Amino acid sequence: MTDLQFVVHGAAEVAAVSDADDAGPAAGLETIADGAVAVVDGEIAAVGETATVTRDYPPENAATAIDAAGKTVQPGFVDPHTHAVFAGDRSDEFEAKLRGKSYQEIMAEGGGILRTVRATREADTETLLANLLDHLDLMLAHGSTTVEVKSGYGLDTETELRMLEVIDRANERHPIDLVATYMGAHAVPEDRDTDEYVDEVVDEQLPAVADQGVAEFCDVFCEEDVFDVAQSRRILEAGRERGLSPKAHAEEFVHLGGTQLAADVGATSADHLLNATSDDVRALIDAGTVPVLLPGTAFGLRTEYADARGMLEAGAPVALATDFNPNCHSHSMGFATTLACVGMRMTPAEALIGATRNAAAAIDRPNGPGRLEVGGPADLCVLDAPSHVHVPYSFGVNRVETVVKDGEVVHG
Amino acid sequence: MTDLQFVVHGAAEVAAVSDADDAGPAAGLETIADGAVAVVDGEIAAVGETATVTRDYPPENAATAIDAAGKTVQPGFVDPHTHAVFAGDRSDEFEAKLRGKSYQEIMAEGGGILRTVRATREADTETLLANLLDHLDLMLAHGSTTVEVKSGYGLDTETELRMLEVIDRANERHPIDLVATYMGAHAVPEDRDTDEYVDEVVDEQLPAVADQGVAEFCDVFCEEDVFDVAQSRRILEAGRERGLSPKAHAEEFVHLGGTQLAADVGATSADHLLNATSDDVRALIDAGTVPVLLPGTAFGLRTEYADARGMLEAGAPVALATDFNPNCHSHSMGFATTLACVGMRMTPAEALIGATRNAAAAIDRPNGPGRLEVGGPADLCVLDAPSHVHVPYSFGVNRVETVVKDGEVVHG
Ligand SMILES: [Zn+2]
Ligand SMILES: [Zn+2]
Repeated sequence: MTDLQFVVHGAAEVAAVSDADDAGPAAGLETIADGAVAVVDGEIAAVGETATVTRDYPPENAATAIDAAGKTVQPGFVDPHTHAVFAGDRSDEFEAKLRGKSYQEIMAEGGGILRTVRATREADTETLLANLLDHLDLMLAHGSTTVEVKSGYGLDTETELRMLEVIDRANERHPIDLVATYMGAHAVPEDRDTDEYVDEVVDEQLPAVADQGVAEFCDVFCEEDVFDVAQSRRILEAGRERGLSPKAHAEEFVHLGGTQLAADVGATSADHLLNATSDDVRALIDAGTVPVLLPGTAFGLRTEYADARGMLEAGAPVALATDFNPNCHSHSMGFATTLACVGMRMTPAEALIGATRNAAAAIDRPNGPGRLEVGGPADLCVLDAPSHVHVPYSFGVNRVETVVKDGEVVHG
Repeated sequence: MTDLQFVVHGAAEVAAVSDADDAGPAAGLETIADGAVAVVDGEIAAVGETATVTRDYPPENAATAIDAAGKTVQPGFVDPHTHAVFAGDRSDEFEAKLRGKSYQEIMAEGGGILRTVRATREADTETLLANLLDHLDLMLAHGSTTVEVKSGYGLDTETELRMLEVIDRANERHPIDLVATYMGAHAVPEDRDTDEYVDEVVDEQLPAVADQGVAEFCDVFCEEDVFDVAQSRRILEAGRERGLSPKAHAEEFVHLGGTQLAADVGATSADHLLNATSDDVRALIDAGTVPVLLPGTAFGLRTEYADARGMLEAGAPVALATDFNPNCHSHSMGFATTLACVGMRMTPAEALIGATRNAAAAIDRPNGPGRLEVGGPADLCVLDAPSHVHVPYSFGVNRVETVVKDGEVVHG
């Protein structure tokens, strides 16, 4: 007798995401009407029509059963790019920007990233952990079951290590699976020479981070007036030597060459890409580097969106993320799909794949999260809506009702 | 001994909205740190600092008390423009539009408003009521405590009356206060001559609607290829004679003159206004007609936003609404404030006033809802965020934790 942990049945739609057999940007999504999912020992044992699934896995034998009439079952969202560990409140800068202040002016007045760095350095570890757990609660309520979190508001060894420790502790305490990225090269600290700071990152921070053993990736903000391509390459290669897979913030404000660099160093993902060219996209595809688009950031800054359609048509596995941070204050992958559709003309199916399977690829989880298939982990959401289309279609409204992680109801 | 119904105390911020003493677009908003609100018999008895309020109204004597440490208390949102009674699902058109289909093509294939009209006519009254109640539940969860709802998916006397009956029944059953608007002139029914249909509205529908006694307002879609200014005037004047205050959908796609018409007939509000001129705005202000902006519609259609800043600087009491309908599928006034700030450069304070006090003015509730002041109704929200700024700042994330209507907790 197997241990039947969970059954959800009678769903208006089960949006089953798996690997794509065919080409095409939305391949690998099968929608099943009157669908059901059964979970045994934290793993998905069956996905299909209710009549078939419940014959083998009767809901009355399950520890938990949900009648999902009129509802949708989809994989839990994977959010592959967040900066969710920080202290302080920069909502006043949101207001200042509306009054016409530029990001440069805000920086000159001591605002922006370096303000969060000051607040984060001053905060004790318990405060940072409490803040992160609060943000994770909101992310979970919006259906995210796996979330990447970056350090990068420390910019010194001690605080960077504390941020990574906080991610590690939150990972143990919170239902969301966390993936840690070291990003000491998020900004240049105040009154520091950039090359000298790159030395510190390479010679001091990276060895300590590798010793600590929490971070899986090393990321860098390759951007005009931040880290140039040569500096970024030095950091990513040094990270790779220490066992950290490369990632890059590339071509956000200008075209600098970060995407080609990411492809060159075999980065797992290249993120932002607002100014990436079609050659850049080709290089990413050839290198197996996943393009991660962050439409919330473009929305908040009122800039153009990345060219998602061009990337999809070139065959790139476009992933979506929230970019949650004090400058893009959104915990919701569902809202990222709304922006992906309305702002970037992705279809709801492409947006769902981008927010699940492709997002998992962007954090090097090629099997497992971001899927809803037999043998995969039972991380899923039940939506109070009749199809996956209603997620992007419901502007600014969270349709996630219940979240299941490893077969256990963890929200709703 | 008074009946102390409710106390919320220790709030990081109480965002107290009242009538403006001074000029200025955000006048009438007072933010109180470490604030409290006390409610006696459904009315607000005290608003102020926690130490002062709780001396007179001790939380331990209240039927319900909330410790709002780190949280914000604000008035319940007033949503003054929705089309929330309908049947059918048009999420497939959202997808078709992303694939490049124009609204005109969708209409030509039988989609658009007239598709909702067919589905609504065919639906029985209980289905319409159940659908509306579901939408109201989502609106309440997003902090709306007063909502205007229009008919206008019947376009025949029988269905228009049924829609208004549904609004009336929902008003009795749901915590949200509903305000009903008759909008038989929402579209021209299939295969009908417009003038002939206007005759039907004036001679048949309006008298029946007035007899029924549910609707308070009469609205018209004054737009190219829908109802022209002369037809709109005829309908609004006929409605006024039957005791229904005028409202108008004006200058959404082209500049046609609906705003001047609204001012001319003394309309309570003129809505959309994407193509309104500064003369139009002047006319609205002189007539005391409230401009209602619907940024969700512009967002979804990827058009320009209305000129909120110009209106505010001219001294207009700009109100915000969701425009919830199958074409703008958003139940969230909080999201409307995000779009108002990011898209129209309103400040968070202006957006809050627009979504509360000015929204109440747009449905002719000059005292009462949309305020948080002594003597007013105790309709309020507790936000899981430290200030009202966090509502627009949290893109696509609902920060409403608890909703109180007439002093009773009705959500959360
Ligand atoms: Zn980032
Ligand atoms: Zn409307």
